[in-house]
Amino acid sequence: MRMYDIIEKKRNGHVLSEEEIRFFVQGYTDGSIPDYQASALCMAIYFQGMSDEEISILTDAMAHSGDTVDLSRFGDLSADKHSTGGVGDKTSLIVIPTVACLGAKLAKMSGRGLGHTGGTVDKLESIPGYQTSMDGEAFMKQVEDVGLAIIGQSGNLTPADKKLYALRDVTATVDSIPLITSSIMSKKLAAGAHNIVLDVKVGSGAFMKTPRQARELAQKMVDIGKMCGRNMAAVLSNMNVPLGTHIGNALEVKEAIAVLKGEVHNDLRNVCEVLASNLISMVLQIPLDKALEEVKEAIDSGKAFETMKAWIKAQGGDVRYIEDPALFPVSPVIYEVKSPASGYIEAMNAEEIGITSVMLGAGREKKEDAIDYSAGIILCKKVGDKVQAGDTLCLFHTAREQALPAAEAKYLAALRFGETKPEAEPLIYEVIR
Amino acid sequence: MRMYDIIEKKRNGHVLSEEEIRFFVQGYTDGSIPDYQASALCMAIYFQGMSDEEISILTDAMAHSGDTVDLSRFGDLSADKHSTGGVGDKTSLIVIPTVACLGAKLAKMSGRGLGHTGGTVDKLESIPGYQTSMDGEAFMKQVEDVGLAIIGQSGNLTPADKKLYALRDVTATVDSIPLITSSIMSKKLAAGAHNIVLDVKVGSGAFMKTPRQARELAQKMVDIGKMCGRNMAAVLSNMNVPLGTHIGNALEVKEAIAVLKGEVHNDLRNVCEVLASNLISMVLQIPLDKALEEVKEAIDSGKAFETMKAWIKAQGGDVRYIEDPALFPVSPVIYEVKSPASGYIEAMNAEEIGITSVMLGAGREKKEDAIDYSAGIILCKKVGDKVQAGDTLCLFHTAREQALPAAEAKYLAALRFGETKPEAEPLIYEVIR
Repeated sequence: MRMYDIIEKKRNGHVLSEEEIRFFVQGYTDGSIPDYQASALCMAIYFQGMSDEEISILTDAMAHSGDTVDLSRFGDLSADKHSTGGVGDKTSLIVIPTVACLGAKLAKMSGRGLGHTGGTVDKLESIPGYQTSMDGEAFMKQVEDVGLAIIGQSGNLTPADKKLYALRDVTATVDSIPLITSSIMSKKLAAGAHNIVLDVKVGSGAFMKTPRQARELAQKMVDIGKMCGRNMAAVLSNMNVPLGTHIGNALEVKEAIAVLKGEVHNDLRNVCEVLASNLISMVLQIPLDKALEEVKEAIDSGKAFETMKAWIKAQGGDVRYIEDPALFPVSPVIYEVKSPASGYIEAMNAEEIGITSVMLGAGREKKEDAIDYSAGIILCKKVGDKVQAGDTLCLFHTAREQALPAAEAKYLAALRFGETKPEAEPLIYEVIR
Repeated sequence: MRMYDIIEKKRNGHVLSEEEIRFFVQGYTDGSIPDYQASALCMAIYFQGMSDEEISILTDAMAHSGDTVDLSRFGDLSADKHSTGGVGDKTSLIVIPTVACLGAKLAKMSGRGLGHTGGTVDKLESIPGYQTSMDGEAFMKQVEDVGLAIIGQSGNLTPADKKLYALRDVTATVDSIPLITSSIMSKKLAAGAHNIVLDVKVGSGAFMKTPRQARELAQKMVDIGKMCGRNMAAVLSNMNVPLGTHIGNALEVKEAIAVLKGEVHNDLRNVCEVLASNLISMVLQIPLDKALEEVKEAIDSGKAFETMKAWIKAQGGDVRYIEDPALFPVSPVIYEVKSPASGYIEAMNAEEIGITSVMLGAGREKKEDAIDYSAGIILCKKVGDKVQAGDTLCLFHTAREQALPAAEAKYLAALRFGETKPEAEPLIYEVIR
């Protein structure tokens, strides 16, 4: 078998065989197929697409290119949640303890942030003492006892995807539905959970800019997951506006705590309820409306918050910070961004607001960059709110005083003001199951 | 400027700027742009195409990526001929001395054969003593004195094309009209001739399998050559059947001699007349019908043959072989392939017949392979001929007796027999000027 023939076959619009796809994944992982042939194939896939059968084989081959996590000890209760990434997206911190307190088992390895969206592991590291690595057996034991554990990525999971994603990232072949699907789903399959909920973000702060694109990707991921024997649900949620009000690592932990304490009932809580209820309905095999009731009750009764505390404690975190978030260190500079205009906020560019938070120190521009856990933005006004010139639009938390002028200009440029109240957009576009 | 953005722009179907195309060619030639980005761009070009303006810039950038040949001393008389490659294609050996004896100046660097088609330099090396390399000034002096010189490729001509072609060859991005056009035309522009005739072969033995494909390529090459200030003509000629009757290096030289001596009036002579008359009509700025008369007269009078002898002599070749081709060594085995059937030859697969000649020793499968100059095939029956079972279809000349059974099977499988005489196909489909 020759890689040349595989590229030509896909270029000509034909369906690759299982043998051909596995030959490519294995050869690319072991280095016998060079980057220049892999990038040509990715570009051919960009134009010619792949059938569901092909995507499912590609996903499986990448899932098995390295280690896989065995969650069989948890039977059908193992669960996982994945977000395609958004600004202010701290849903994992809320959804995971909530479903864990209802009986799901979540052994989650999570990523760090790069670019305009933050990573769950970075957020958790803002809690003093929290350990993001532990050995395999301790990890499993904690999941058994507490219902969940969240650590950083470890081991040699999906090396084929790591290598291929790095190549796609420099050859303009990232945004291909078959390649995104196989990349995300190979990691989910290798992570071993039986029940998976996907939060597919749509809008200015997300990778998928339109509901149509997002729906196509979500449907594909659900189909492929099911073909591989997993229970799947995908929630299409709005990311034209940052989720909740807090952006930045410690700030997002604080907002998550407030939701789990039942103190806020905002868009963030609503999205978390939809994600958690979809996941728990699959795990417990109960109807969705019943699952939603259970989720609300878990939060309102404080059960979910107790599970959060047990989890943070089990991983070495200082629970006093969870009980009293006022203990978190606060940035030396808190700067009020004032509205230059009167009227309604018609639109916000969530991606630009995410980049603003990185300018303030909340994220990384390069892999090696250090994060300022306290830094970030608290939104005071969001889309649809009426403002007067001079009203406070948001608060910048930062240690970089010199970054303020550029950050303020960036933030203001991300807003559009108008004279009439904009029509409300859906928070959830659709749930695909 | 980033290569990533150039790939993405072309992938999205946009027109690249001159600056972007030159950035790519220079960066790829000097190694600052890696193969995996170049192959992704080539695949994007395969799908999205290029405008004439883009192709002309790409061609010019590749033409100037290394040395160029200065033929200004010959004014408007410099001429060149290029064939896209076919089986039994010895037209250069006939056309070049013919137009040289009529006043054109041809300083030609030619290639070696690989695969199923032979190279002009290999054919010339079958003449004892013929030198395929000489220093630059001697080369130019011979062109001035004799009208022509043909040597092997030397110097650092179009390194960008060499590197890019090698990459396209392993990434299934060869058959893209913009990329073929810029590859061929960059070499022609670097070679410096003012008047260029292209022989674009069409059919089973050629790279372009249909007249439609060939027409598109030919038109594009003519357009680009004219945009770059050259006089251009492209002849679409039939390669469903090998050209002439002789395939193999010394055998083809012998057939070329027979044509120049006026001994044969077959399809080979006809194609040569069309190529030579189109070229000389541009060089001498005379009407095509007048040019055709001049060409016929040059051959029939023996003038073209005298020029061939002067040329071979000037390059050290033993002219006795040209005067008496019976002196060429003959293969130890001459094997008659007999017809298994009675009827008409309906079709021949020229590519498969070319491969058969390589099996007999006439060509190279790998670059390092040695060539047996005597080996090859003499066709006795071609498409449209009536045969009886047992008639001799062709003669194999070879030193590889053990290769005969497989070669015979290959040859017979390349023929299709039928009961009725097939309709004659055109020898020349079209001339584009």
